[in-house]
Amino acid sequence: MTELNAGRALRAAIGGLLGPGRVLDPPAASYTHDATLARGLRGRLDAVVLPQSADEVTRAVAWCYEHDVPIIPRGGGTGLAGGAVPLDGGVVLGLERLRAVRSFDPLVWRIAVEAGMPTADLRRRARENGLYYPPDPGAAESSQIGGNIATNAGGPHAFKYGVTGAWVTGLEVVLPPGELVTFGGAIRKDAAGYDLKRLVIGSEGTLGVITAAWLRLIPAPEAEFPVVAVYPDVATGAAVVAEILGSGLQPATLEYLDGGALAAAAAGRPFAAPPPAGFTVIVEADGSADEATRLRQELVGVLIGGRPLALHAPTEAAAVADLWRWRERVSPAVTARRGGKLGEDIVVPVDRLAEAITETLEIGARHELETCSWGHAGDGNLHSTFMISPDRPDELARAEHAALELFALATRLGGSISGEHGIGVVKAGHLRNTWSEPATLLHERVRAAFDPKRLMNPGKKRP
Amino acid sequence: MTELNAGRALRAAIGGLLGPGRVLDPPAASYTHDATLARGLRGRLDAVVLPQSADEVTRAVAWCYEHDVPIIPRGGGTGLAGGAVPLDGGVVLGLERLRAVRSFDPLVWRIAVEAGMPTADLRRRARENGLYYPPDPGAAESSQIGGNIATNAGGPHAFKYGVTGAWVTGLEVVLPPGELVTFGGAIRKDAAGYDLKRLVIGSEGTLGVITAAWLRLIPAPEAEFPVVAVYPDVATGAAVVAEILGSGLQPATLEYLDGGALAAAAAGRPFAAPPPAGFTVIVEADGSADEATRLRQELVGVLIGGRPLALHAPTEAAAVADLWRWRERVSPAVTARRGGKLGEDIVVPVDRLAEAITETLEIGARHELETCSWGHAGDGNLHSTFMISPDRPDELARAEHAALELFALATRLGGSISGEHGIGVVKAGHLRNTWSEPATLLHERVRAAFDPKRLMNPGKKRP
Repeated sequence: MTELNAGRALRAAIGGLLGPGRVLDPPAASYTHDATLARGLRGRLDAVVLPQSADEVTRAVAWCYEHDVPIIPRGGGTGLAGGAVPLDGGVVLGLERLRAVRSFDPLVWRIAVEAGMPTADLRRRARENGLYYPPDPGAAESSQIGGNIATNAGGPHAFKYGVTGAWVTGLEVVLPPGELVTFGGAIRKDAAGYDLKRLVIGSEGTLGVITAAWLRLIPAPEAEFPVVAVYPDVATGAAVVAEILGSGLQPATLEYLDGGALAAAAAGRPFAAPPPAGFTVIVEADGSADEATRLRQELVGVLIGGRPLALHAPTEAAAVADLWRWRERVSPAVTARRGGKLGEDIVVPVDRLAEAITETLEIGARHELETCSWGHAGDGNLHSTFMISPDRPDELARAEHAALELFALATRLGGSISGEHGIGVVKAGHLRNTWSEPATLLHERVRAAFDPKRLMNPGKKRP
Repeated sequence: MTELNAGRALRAAIGGLLGPGRVLDPPAASYTHDATLARGLRGRLDAVVLPQSADEVTRAVAWCYEHDVPIIPRGGGTGLAGGAVPLDGGVVLGLERLRAVRSFDPLVWRIAVEAGMPTADLRRRARENGLYYPPDPGAAESSQIGGNIATNAGGPHAFKYGVTGAWVTGLEVVLPPGELVTFGGAIRKDAAGYDLKRLVIGSEGTLGVITAAWLRLIPAPEAEFPVVAVYPDVATGAAVVAEILGSGLQPATLEYLDGGALAAAAAGRPFAAPPPAGFTVIVEADGSADEATRLRQELVGVLIGGRPLALHAPTEAAAVADLWRWRERVSPAVTARRGGKLGEDIVVPVDRLAEAITETLEIGARHELETCSWGHAGDGNLHSTFMISPDRPDELARAEHAALELFALATRLGGSISGEHGIGVVKAGHLRNTWSEPATLLHERVRAAFDPKRLMNPGKKRP
């Protein structure tokens, strides 16, 4: 059978199994890539299956597992490590139609949602009921909670509130060879079995397909006041980050942008940034109105102590929203600068932040690439990014070499090669450089315990 | 060889391997039990080994694994599920001599400590530097951070701040067959490999031996104001718990005691509790001095709305410390009442709290046992306890039957059979009643991936 005919047969079989409308025929090309298209990544698939219920996911996984067909789970396709890109055929299993709220109990700070619910919808739903779901990874309107969980997504507010996994109390997952299981649930604590829920969180679709999650929420802070301060250079700005940590204050966010990132995101920037503007800090004070006001004042004091070139401290809701909307556009703005980018999300101990930012620029310069970084300063989490033109394969090749040096940098500083995006395919094979051999072997034995046939998102999260 | 001679040979071999003073000869009887002695649990061991470094732990594990000798890791011996009790011989590996601070960087909210550091020492060390390590399981002076991690211990402040696992950013662990590995480290985020660190957290010594941990800390709250309110009965008190959750306030703790627990802990109780005193609530307001004061006022308002029989709201540091010291003594006071107890730490969805408390009493009554409960109301986590006399084996037998009904209750209400203590040996075999069969089988496959010979804490955490 030719590849084309194999794909047709596969689509017909799964279509027959799940009923009309579940299989896209022909498959839409958009499912062959995710946000790593900006670095040229595109794969090949045999079928796109869009189940309408957890039961349909279970049946699809069971069929594929029985027939040795690779399964590539897919959320919003906003991933930056290629985790949702089908590498060499198989079924892309899109969760986008599973978007129901299973239950919502605002009085006890709890919601259960299906995997395909967009993260922004979840956050809005919580807010409308006086509650707060803190994780705020980028692309919140199109990313989905299932994908957030599968990558253990972070975002600016992870500094105070932790990453996605900190908010998940239960998971419904389809495990190979096609079993719908639940770990945890509507409970806030669980010390009974091994924490298999936490193992699935961040497993990037290689252990099972997340179909629903129980999430805890907290009362929404009454006020959120961001403060932006612009400094001339990395050394001055990073010293201010250290001052904030050492001050004993606890902001909700502690973000930074280097000069290149700020320049790339100049359009619509809602604050002044007089040159040389080499380092920008964004903190946020939240809490009750009084508390947020007090904390904001103290943070402003520390920021002013670093002699900023400019300070922007909006308090009106519209101006606050403007600032965070602009912050969300930093990543696409950096992409837009040359049409493409290759960025990695290394993590370092927070006291090595300045070194990591400076060395990112040096690595880029050595490879003759336009380079910048921004990210979650308080978490030591950089988005170290090389801007490339899609018409210049030489730039992509150089950027890929430069990325290897970023991984080595993270390892040398005692960090991790990924703080948010995961391994996906773009970092596949690089975990072994930071993990010891016994740990790496154990990683693969755990995978085999879940997926003996290695059909779950093959080629991803390889150590 | 007789059992006795086998033990002697074992002790001589490990003593020769690690050097003088590492093996207790003869072994001290105190290592044959933990806090479950109060329910009559005592085991048998061949050797007690007290290594002085992670390297010595590694060599001891390697020797035992090679010679098929069971390894029973032990922290402070304060566990309430029998996790540290050697069931049928083997080496009890006490971590108590590994108590160094590996590194402490208060300016970036970070500490790395060895497993044997007492939890209270860690909390004090943080406080002395303006920082806060929130987890506060009972027996903080004698429990150790390694044991806290191995059971993912909770405590009152877990309501706002999460359980132990939320504070662990890295682990050093000796894995079978004797490899010292590190997962994570001095970093606040890590999305690279599977979260094997989180899998070891709460694994009760069945996956490896924790030798050290990197922990994150936060700036210490400036003020902490507890408020106690006493209500006539469970229905009224549980309604107040629901009111607090629904009010949108976020206390740091949301504790309860039923009438029996309060009566058992009458000695030294630092507040008035006029009869019928069937339900006591303890909340705490924390934050900056202004914020804690404001929150305290609002919490008092909600508590008064429930028409308490008494209200106690200390603000002086000494009175606040008195209250929490008394709260820590509740568990031993309940034990003291009849000389023994059998308690389980079930969890239910928080909106099922009143049912679980009431049914605990009904279960005890059916088995003619003096019964009470207390615990972490806001987390739906009960310490459902049957008081027994050590001279009455019939009471112990009835309590063991009653415990089965507690597990069934937790399962029926959508909860977990353990929120804090773990499975240990006392709940061994009961996980399969709340977990599905595929999940249970996976649990055991994961265990086998770590410990193919099943020598790590055998008989514990069996589903």
